[in-house]
Amino acid sequence: MKTLERLGILTSGGDCPGLNAVIRAVVSHAVLTYGWHVVGIPYATRGLLDRAMMPLSLHGLDLKGIDPLLTMGGTILGSINKGDTLSRIQEVLDGYAALELDALIGIGGDGSLAILNQLATQGNWQFIGIPKTIDNDVACTERAIGFDTAVNTITEALTRLTFTAASHDRVMIVEVMGREAGHLALHSGIAGGADVILIPEISYSIAQVCQHLAELRDRWGRRFAIVVVAEGAHRSLESANQSCEAIKCGMGQYVANEIATCSPYPVDCRVSVLGHIQRGGIPSALDRLIAASLGKTAVDLIANGESQKMVAWQNGHAETVPLDAVLAKSPCSVDPASDLVQTARALGIYTGK
Amino acid sequence: MKTLERLGILTSGGDCPGLNAVIRAVVSHAVLTYGWHVVGIPYATRGLLDRAMMPLSLHGLDLKGIDPLLTMGGTILGSINKGDTLSRIQEVLDGYAALELDALIGIGGDGSLAILNQLATQGNWQFIGIPKTIDNDVACTERAIGFDTAVNTITEALTRLTFTAASHDRVMIVEVMGREAGHLALHSGIAGGADVILIPEISYSIAQVCQHLAELRDRWGRRFAIVVVAEGAHRSLESANQSCEAIKCGMGQYVANEIATCSPYPVDCRVSVLGHIQRGGIPSALDRLIAASLGKTAVDLIANGESQKMVAWQNGHAETVPLDAVLAKSPCSVDPASDLVQTARALGIYTGK
Amino acid sequence: MKTLERLGILTSGGDCPGLNAVIRAVVSHAVLTYGWHVVGIPYATRGLLDRAMMPLSLHGLDLKGIDPLLTMGGTILGSINKGDTLSRIQEVLDGYAALELDALIGIGGDGSLAILNQLATQGNWQFIGIPKTIDNDVACTERAIGFDTAVNTITEALTRLTFTAASHDRVMIVEVMGREAGHLALHSGIAGGADVILIPEISYSIAQVCQHLAELRDRWGRRFAIVVVAEGAHRSLESANQSCEAIKCGMGQYVANEIATCSPYPVDCRVSVLGHIQRGGIPSALDRLIAASLGKTAVDLIANGESQKMVAWQNGHAETVPLDAVLAKSPCSVDPASDLVQTARALGIYTGK
Amino acid sequence: MKTLERLGILTSGGDCPGLNAVIRAVVSHAVLTYGWHVVGIPYATRGLLDRAMMPLSLHGLDLKGIDPLLTMGGTILGSINKGDTLSRIQEVLDGYAALELDALIGIGGDGSLAILNQLATQGNWQFIGIPKTIDNDVACTERAIGFDTAVNTITEALTRLTFTAASHDRVMIVEVMGREAGHLALHSGIAGGADVILIPEISYSIAQVCQHLAELRDRWGRRFAIVVVAEGAHRSLESANQSCEAIKCGMGQYVANEIATCSPYPVDCRVSVLGHIQRGGIPSALDRLIAASLGKTAVDLIANGESQKMVAWQNGHAETVPLDAVLAKSPCSVDPASDLVQTARALGIYTGK
Repeated sequence: MKTLERLGILTSGGDCPGLNAVIRAVVSHAVLTYGWHVVGIPYATRGLLDRAMMPLSLHGLDLKGIDPLLTMGGTILGSINKGDTLSRIQEVLDGYAALELDALIGIGGDGSLAILNQLATQGNWQFIGIPKTIDNDVACTERAIGFDTAVNTITEALTRLTFTAASHDRVMIVEVMGREAGHLALHSGIAGGADVILIPEISYSIAQVCQHLAELRDRWGRRFAIVVVAEGAHRSLESANQSCEAIKCGMGQYVANEIATCSPYPVDCRVSVLGHIQRGGIPSALDRLIAASLGKTAVDLIANGESQKMVAWQNGHAETVPLDAVLAKSPCSVDPASDLVQTARALGIYTGK
Repeated sequence: MKTLERLGILTSGGDCPGLNAVIRAVVSHAVLTYGWHVVGIPYATRGLLDRAMMPLSLHGLDLKGIDPLLTMGGTILGSINKGDTLSRIQEVLDGYAALELDALIGIGGDGSLAILNQLATQGNWQFIGIPKTIDNDVACTERAIGFDTAVNTITEALTRLTFTAASHDRVMIVEVMGREAGHLALHSGIAGGADVILIPEISYSIAQVCQHLAELRDRWGRRFAIVVVAEGAHRSLESANQSCEAIKCGMGQYVANEIATCSPYPVDCRVSVLGHIQRGGIPSALDRLIAASLGKTAVDLIANGESQKMVAWQNGHAETVPLDAVLAKSPCSVDPASDLVQTARALGIYTGK
Repeated sequence: MKTLERLGILTSGGDCPGLNAVIRAVVSHAVLTYGWHVVGIPYATRGLLDRAMMPLSLHGLDLKGIDPLLTMGGTILGSINKGDTLSRIQEVLDGYAALELDALIGIGGDGSLAILNQLATQGNWQFIGIPKTIDNDVACTERAIGFDTAVNTITEALTRLTFTAASHDRVMIVEVMGREAGHLALHSGIAGGADVILIPEISYSIAQVCQHLAELRDRWGRRFAIVVVAEGAHRSLESANQSCEAIKCGMGQYVANEIATCSPYPVDCRVSVLGHIQRGGIPSALDRLIAASLGKTAVDLIANGESQKMVAWQNGHAETVPLDAVLAKSPCSVDPASDLVQTARALGIYTGK
Repeated sequence: MKTLERLGILTSGGDCPGLNAVIRAVVSHAVLTYGWHVVGIPYATRGLLDRAMMPLSLHGLDLKGIDPLLTMGGTILGSINKGDTLSRIQEVLDGYAALELDALIGIGGDGSLAILNQLATQGNWQFIGIPKTIDNDVACTERAIGFDTAVNTITEALTRLTFTAASHDRVMIVEVMGREAGHLALHSGIAGGADVILIPEISYSIAQVCQHLAELRDRWGRRFAIVVVAEGAHRSLESANQSCEAIKCGMGQYVANEIATCSPYPVDCRVSVLGHIQRGGIPSALDRLIAASLGKTAVDLIANGESQKMVAWQNGHAETVPLDAVLAKSPCSVDPASDLVQTARALGIYTGK
């Protein structure tokens, strides 16, 4: 077993619920089991550039013994979405050396993990990655931290919107996150009782959407509908012109405009852009559980001298995958032939062609 | 005590949580205590024009004995926001007569109650009104149905947004409902820990907002902020030009643009428009309690032969007020000298000049 | 306006959600508006005996700028339920003097406020009280802090229990808090769709309960039921023997046993004792709003040189009442002739004779 | 592809959230994709004995188009926990024949699935099983329906209890469901920040529990604790005498008594028995998603002529397993060497020897 003087941890990319629960697990295991010092690097690689760190200790953030890290969304370390790391690699490596870190655990999406992996190679760091993203598009892991909470948040929003859509016979267009992957839209649409789900991975036509809404009305007497649209669903529109238009006016608004134009009936469309509330919130029990398991396993990997691996969640427990293998397959998009897409169709949800 | 053959009930204006709980209470009391028949008029006055009604009976909507009316947001009767009632008064009166209603209970905001009151006068209807609006701007009642749930919904959204704003050092601009009244923004901003609350009733300057944000940062080291803006806060901008601009690009986006321009520091502003999720949701316990009390009292007033009254919620119980008195004072806006505005300021929240 | 060197604050009696929100408001207003120092006295009067205090400063408990006090239930100051204050009055007074407090704000139920008022009289303290109790039985205030959250918690539990009761055709007996007052049972029972509500203030008979359950079944085809029982409902049983028996086996279990014995049909009764989860939880928006308003007003009263007053919540804003007047009327129980009891009956809920 | 006239569906054993979501998915897929008739058998096998059935049609339970099945806990078909099926097998088989069912989908735990599998063998039924149980102890599936919701419910209760435990420096003993398997206690204890988790599968000593609590206090200054105890944790007590005592007074109360006796410090223990609220509640997004996928897959298996299989959830999608294989390995208990038990220990949670 390896002996470390100082383990660093950072969070990178868009924040999500469960990051603090990972930090808590890493500190707990490193301190209690191995007796290491753990320091947080603020604002991802910017903290390395700035040579900044904050000590993290067990129960160090307690309020009368209550540990808020378990229930707080976001990250106490701060994060950045896009930095200038790649143009300042040597400075980052110098910062890492100056902080005298023996190893680093980085929590990020596939973009952040790729950069950190490159830095680890060049700087000969001992580095372990943990996947997080509400988009759930990191390969080789069933779930990334933050996804389950975001799906629950959107599902609850769909229930709210269903009540008001039904009261006023409206077609409610709900734009959710997902620039390249439609997992969020697909999972929450099925769980939340959507009538239509439009995602970047499956082409669709507005004419078919309108036909589906007309059938809901004519065959089943249902005069309202819920349409879930991933923000990146312009990618699967039929023509480049349409995609341009959709990007210009926002995906949700575009679908509303098109339905209003194409529908054989007059429809009262309203657009809801869920936005940042999808990133916030108290982490779900599952996200906290996965956070604990992945955080614990990452520390064990460090202790075993391993590097450039990602801890993954597969079939109810933590596994280890080489980062190169993960990055070669990421981002991981929705397979149009998958069980869940077929499930959506079995429920009568239009999901494209 | 009066004997009725048929009591009508309708919901009018924008929907909100708690309407179904009122319907449930009215049906229950009318059937169990008085033995009347109750019919629902679909889609407010449009149902009268269409001479449509649906019978409502106790436990009539049960699913294995579970009454979903208590927990469902929206209204099973449907509603309309703006109709052509005023240009078709005689037809509405004829429809009412054709449906052979002995009395009517109408649930609506101040606009709907005014129209229904006028119809009741001209048609000599026995009519009782019940106030509902998430804006809480009906006069003579401490609370309208739907307000408490909407405040809870926004407050929870603010908590979510705080986590992500803090993780990325952002200024999060949150646009909430309230075209003319700022009650929603004020209550949820205080409860949700806002730093700035901008409402239609109190003038403010973006320069002061920026100064406040700078003080948060310089004096307290706080690098993020939550700014709650009522959608109608353009009314209290300093110039007509500014108002025009704010209406054009949306109140939240306008504030974000202005802060980005005026701030002495670079700030990363993000806008969240909460939209229709504010109208949805399972009604809070308080909204259900008030719904039960007001629904019950409205039925008693009908039984006592009263008309053109509104049932109000004052200091923990139902009271009765003449509709004329209510309408003379509505809409009821935020008093800039009120206890709550002073409370916001005591908490260090900027609320305007 | 008075100038203070040091303002003390303590929480006393059973904890509830919203206490930390009061502390936050008091500190904020005292520091920002008046420039005072505020210290917390830990564990109510025990802290005075121990001459202990903790400094409280604005944003002093921040986690990356997030103030957890707004969303944390309980009290960071700690509390005690029953102490030996009354037998050690001089020591408490000496402790107060030793801490060099200029004034004290105490948050408590009617028992705690009575003791603190007595101490203030004997010690010539400047003292302002703020009412808190999930039982809502402090007189002269429409609401005490914690009540709204507890009602929401119980109402949500009733919804959960309704699903499982209906699935198995069970009579679910739900024991809720309320040793002397039935406000919690009454409010949550109405909001949560109970069939029977048994409280300390209204006598009832198990035979009538069974008759009511039989009618639900025979007349409405409803084969399950929800019975909400206040833990102190043994007070309104018909005989001293029954009360003894109920105290011995627990109120919920007693009702279950009696129904099983008296019912003309075989019924499958299950008992749920909600217990301490009623005290916990994130405070509701309304509890946070009231906490802010009462905390702010208490500080203003101190600044104005007032003492031995309680700040109360009446009809949507803070008011001031002499503590003697409050204590003379407390505890404030449910009036059997009140609007809400009649509302429960209008909904077909059995609430006693 | 097989053509059916009539597909039956029943729910058996203790209810849980998500059952109605399965029913909804089965009806939707059978009607929309295959054009079959679907009937519900009320109260599990009792419905077969009674030769009772209820037609289930798409959107048949709509309230203004809103389908409450997605958000309702429990089962609209009703269920029974223990019946006399095994002593009346021929009558059940006769009932099945009388109802002229072509195939049956049964949702149940391992006990119910075993009985239904036996009936299917003897009666030559075409039968597909779907696993549900908040205990999550059905083998060959990562998750049974209801588990995720129950874990979230308990986790939220632990947060509530933490606030009040911390305010009063109490040791809160929380008894959760789990007669033979500790999955619920383990998952929710990790997610909810427990200090001690006691389950049927791992032996423990109260002396070690007390030592752990003392260390929390002495080493970390933490004066409260959360102890999660599975109701069946008497199985892993050290002696038969202790087990008897624990069964007699209830597992939670037993642990409280023992801690109070053994602790070197005076501790204020309180017991919370969560009881039936663990079974209730709106299903989580994940439970709804799994319900949709398993329900859809079960219908496809029927269409393909398969029988005596169970649909399982493995690594994010539905799979098929022979019921014999499932039953041979059920109930599936917590492996003391598993990743999650080690994770709990890494977080400093005492989980037994």
